Amino acid sequence: MPGEFDIIREYFQRNGKAEGLVTGIGDDGAVIRPAPGRDLVVVTDTLVAGRHFPEDRAAADIGWLAMAANLSDLAAMGAEPKYAFLNLALPSADEIWLREFSAGLFELADQYSVALAGGDTTSGPLNVSVTLIGEVPEGRALLRSGAKPGDHIFVTGWPGRAAAALQCWRRGESVPADLDIAWRRPEPRVAAGVALRGLASAVIDVSDGLAADLRHILEQSSAGQYEIGAILDAEKLPLAKSLLELFGGTQARSGVLSGGDDYELCFTLPPENVPVMQAAFAALNLPVHEIGSIEEERGLRLKTTAGVETLTGQLGWDHFREMDA
Amino acid sequence: MPGEFDIIREYFQRNGKAEGLVTGIGDDGAVIRPAPGRDLVVVTDTLVAGRHFPEDRAAADIGWLAMAANLSDLAAMGAEPKYAFLNLALPSADEIWLREFSAGLFELADQYSVALAGGDTTSGPLNVSVTLIGEVPEGRALLRSGAKPGDHIFVTGWPGRAAAALQCWRRGESVPADLDIAWRRPEPRVAAGVALRGLASAVIDVSDGLAADLRHILEQSSAGQYEIGAILDAEKLPLAKSLLELFGGTQARSGVLSGGDDYELCFTLPPENVPVMQAAFAALNLPVHEIGSIEEERGLRLKTTAGVETLTGQLGWDHFREMDA
Repeated sequence: MPGEFDIIREYFQRNGKAEGLVTGIGDDGAVIRPAPGRDLVVVTDTLVAGRHFPEDRAAADIGWLAMAANLSDLAAMGAEPKYAFLNLALPSADEIWLREFSAGLFELADQYSVALAGGDTTSGPLNVSVTLIGEVPEGRALLRSGAKPGDHIFVTGWPGRAAAALQCWRRGESVPADLDIAWRRPEPRVAAGVALRGLASAVIDVSDGLAADLRHILEQSSAGQYEIGAILDAEKLPLAKSLLELFGGTQARSGVLSGGDDYELCFTLPPENVPVMQAAFAALNLPVHEIGSIEEERGLRLKTTAGVETLTGQLGWDHFREMDA
Repeated sequence: MPGEFDIIREYFQRNGKAEGLVTGIGDDGAVIRPAPGRDLVVVTDTLVAGRHFPEDRAAADIGWLAMAANLSDLAAMGAEPKYAFLNLALPSADEIWLREFSAGLFELADQYSVALAGGDTTSGPLNVSVTLIGEVPEGRALLRSGAKPGDHIFVTGWPGRAAAALQCWRRGESVPADLDIAWRRPEPRVAAGVALRGLASAVIDVSDGLAADLRHILEQSSAGQYEIGAILDAEKLPLAKSLLELFGGTQARSGVLSGGDDYELCFTLPPENVPVMQAAFAALNLPVHEIGSIEEERGLRLKTTAGVETLTGQLGWDHFREMDA
């Protein structure tokens, strides 16, 4: 049975040097030398078994997901990922589990040249917290708070797929392959976030659900002198083919609005920036869909063929309320 | 029952602005603007109920401890604490617990002007991970790896008290007040760490036990061309009065060598820096004890009135091995 230090050496410590990382794993802390003229962006996310993933989820998928959730938060800030810190509590030092978990974690970390720079390993009920540090040019981090009336609203990819997979799984039904991948191995939109720097007025990643996360943008953009609202066009919501086949149009649209943990980006930008953004996304081969616009009138509305309805109530995901459900 | 966002707003979000913190709690991540000519030091620590503290530990003490463990790691790097991130999993959104936990956390954070800049809150078995970011002048972080033969070895304060309190508690005996405070409310040696910049050749905080942590210094300082060792003088080990009264001299000395989680600093420095360090510590009213010296001969030895014995075996604390005990 390996001890705490064996686990770190065997599964998490690597000898590669990362730029800007003066001291990595093995001391009391990591030492980072920030590049001049750069701001650091720090994000952190905790995953708990039975809440953020099913108890029987493969270890490699858990490692991937812990990295993906944080990369997605960095993407929503427009940051380039640099350093990761892993806090891992696990019931026993299961070497097969550790090998697979670290493989999944590094598979995604390596895609973005993220260096694992520190962490803490202990025994306890399974809990995976990852903290990521990224960089942006000074003053260029993308926030949730800049949306203005007249801005167009976009979302990347096809949100709602992870939640649809979860629903199939809960019902004991087989999960279509594309939904399963979106659920188990979500791809954070890191390149999209970087491309949006200097273009988007507000960005958030879809972790609580598209409607709930758009509400965060409205609330935080309203903090200034006036309050704002938004209208979404039901006909423009991107519907993944398998979502449509499984649930039909109405339920699929509802799933797109409420499903969380997809790690797509929802963002707003002024009309004059739309062509530049679309050209940049086309060049990067990134899917993006215009879904509505910001308005002066408060509230979140959905335009359908039948008229305009106001979206109210608990349409998103709350990691505490869900527990009580 | 409050939700995730209510908890953050009510207990963890403050409006105060911290220097260098461009964006704090409330967006996808925090934005930090590093001061020119400074390195950032990142430390992180996880606390699990029943492992790092008893299940019935008061919430305020848990909040304090989570901050103290990390401040101690920053102290061992010579860093000034700046920003904290909290990952909190807890079984239910118990408002009394949350109020007391956040009060304990902020009580210590405020002493060091640490700003809580972000985090994640979810339901799950109790797990408290704190990540702290501190600053040092560029290239001045204190590492474990610089000890050299001829260096003197020091330890701050009176290590072994927290472990002694734990032992009393396990036996169902009453815990002497000074040991209880050292266990429940350890004071990280932040000022000592800063004072050691430019003086100490190696520093570590005593979290695994004095002998085990000194071994970490020996191992990491040996990574170069030669391997080194150390000799400790049993007569010079600082014995807290209540430790001596409870256990007698021999057992108390053993407790000083093996007891973890005291958050004292163990450090080495070349003879020529000893007077400057002692003057600095006297001016700051910081207790410090010389306990031995670094030697060319490999291994860790203890000099007693009966002769010199080699310290071997598992003298420290391992958060995995303990679990299997």
